[in-house]
Amino acid sequence: MAFRLTILGTSSALPTSDRYPTAHVLNVHERLFLIDCGEGTQMQMRRYKIRFGKINHIFISHLHGDHFFGVYPLLSTFNLMGRKNTLHLYVPSPAEELIARHLADFDINLGYELIVHTVSGRSLKSILVDKRVEVFSFPLKHRITTYGYLFREKTPDRNMISEKIEEYNLTIEEIATARRGGDIVRPSGQVIACGEVTLEPRHPATYAFCSDTGRVKKLASWIRGVDLLYHEATFGDDHDPLALKTGHSTARQAATVALEAGAKHLLLGHFSARYRSPAVLETEAREVFPDSAAAREGATYEIG
Amino acid sequence: MAFRLTILGTSSALPTSDRYPTAHVLNVHERLFLIDCGEGTQMQMRRYKIRFGKINHIFISHLHGDHFFGVYPLLSTFNLMGRKNTLHLYVPSPAEELIARHLADFDINLGYELIVHTVSGRSLKSILVDKRVEVFSFPLKHRITTYGYLFREKTPDRNMISEKIEEYNLTIEEIATARRGGDIVRPSGQVIACGEVTLEPRHPATYAFCSDTGRVKKLASWIRGVDLLYHEATFGDDHDPLALKTGHSTARQAATVALEAGAKHLLLGHFSARYRSPAVLETEAREVFPDSAAAREGATYEIG
Repeated sequence: MAFRLTILGTSSALPTSDRYPTAHVLNVHERLFLIDCGEGTQMQMRRYKIRFGKINHIFISHLHGDHFFGVYPLLSTFNLMGRKNTLHLYVPSPAEELIARHLADFDINLGYELIVHTVSGRSLKSILVDKRVEVFSFPLKHRITTYGYLFREKTPDRNMISEKIEEYNLTIEEIATARRGGDIVRPSGQVIACGEVTLEPRHPATYAFCSDTGRVKKLASWIRGVDLLYHEATFGDDHDPLALKTGHSTARQAATVALEAGAKHLLLGHFSARYRSPAVLETEAREVFPDSAAAREGATYEIG
Repeated sequence: MAFRLTILGTSSALPTSDRYPTAHVLNVHERLFLIDCGEGTQMQMRRYKIRFGKINHIFISHLHGDHFFGVYPLLSTFNLMGRKNTLHLYVPSPAEELIARHLADFDINLGYELIVHTVSGRSLKSILVDKRVEVFSFPLKHRITTYGYLFREKTPDRNMISEKIEEYNLTIEEIATARRGGDIVRPSGQVIACGEVTLEPRHPATYAFCSDTGRVKKLASWIRGVDLLYHEATFGDDHDPLALKTGHSTARQAATVALEAGAKHLLLGHFSARYRSPAVLETEAREVFPDSAAAREGATYEIG
């Protein structure tokens, strides 16, 4: 039962020799969700053995190139690989026409359906529900329209108490009913409360992605108690005014969001090329929120 | 006196784990000319230590993504690096408006001048002349408007015969005159023929870039005697009909062009992902033109 994040890029707009622009892959029970897609994302996917065919959803935070320039090459690659499955692309601000125009400009004729969803709204909003996960968008504050995304695992099944199976001689259907949280009602009228034969399920895993953004007052309330918060940390304390001016955050500000939100872990990324190593950003974040870590290219994080 | 080619990518439209899409860098006496610019070109430039600031000219063969998707990220990177020099972008078919629109779509405001030149014409055409090199375009035959480029070093200076300097007690100005091919005329009326004090200069180096293309009848005549011919070889003999259908060439067809043109060396590239190694393509080309080689990522070739 995977709920696992792989980082494909940790650079901000200017990549370095070892940092690629933003792209995250969230594996929810072997379905992959790609979040942002900077230049070279498909190369990073190959490097880190991400299965192209398992991606049906791409979520874009905003239309700056370091979060988007990998999209068209990836759409083209899907095409050349003979993709037939529908691909869902979530983009802030209406982009359906713009994307269709760009694809035509580059002579790309997709052999599969591409559905462009416009992300909008002024607070937390459910944008995708399936049997494994629910995805929410929420507005961030950057130089252009930008959204963050919250992924919440659907409540896992309750855990069976194995000795109760024999005690009550439970059928497979009865077990399934109880695991989903229902009481068992037998033809005889006998009722077996689900709490009698099962234990509380584990906590549903949650992941929040926040890039790029300045301070958003309500952000902490939207992602309250999140297991893993990814928050951009383009700058350190030394460039606080530049962060404000460019609609970005310092590592300390990212850590403050994690603290306010009661996040369990904080992952920093989108590092300015001026920092050869993100160690200093990690240090500054930890002064506010001890469980902070700088994201690393190719690293995988188990969530929940 | 460099005339040197570095290969940044040898894949066709579908990159592989070790092959990037097309991008070549020609170093002409320390001025760099970028030819095609697929996704990830700037990452490859960093990997192979190509100096960003030395590029003032980019030549695009056609507007398919695997030859162009690296352009906007690179323009953006130039911007973030504080570039002030004018950048010249040569693109087949009128693309000035299209590029301006795309840059606006991605919120890119260049801090330097970008001049988009439209490449056109039905035969060999001089499109750039400076004191070191002359660049020509010529039409190729692909699914969309496509051009190849020929780079010809300006005739190098004649070689001084060192003992003649002392014999005639030549001044620096007189040496410069003779090296440029002029006779020396002294105030006294004495004339020293340049052939008396200098030797013929070496042959001017030439490089021709042909990607992507099917058969073009006049191609060999346009690039007659070229020192290094790069010609795409997407397929092998096993996919001859597919090459024809998609507007591409087989390695054998590329070698035939080299033979007809009397090229000195042939470099193959733009390999389909179906060939794990381009060795088979190299072998097929050598049956027609022995001095054929498959291009390698990061390899540098001295020309002339």
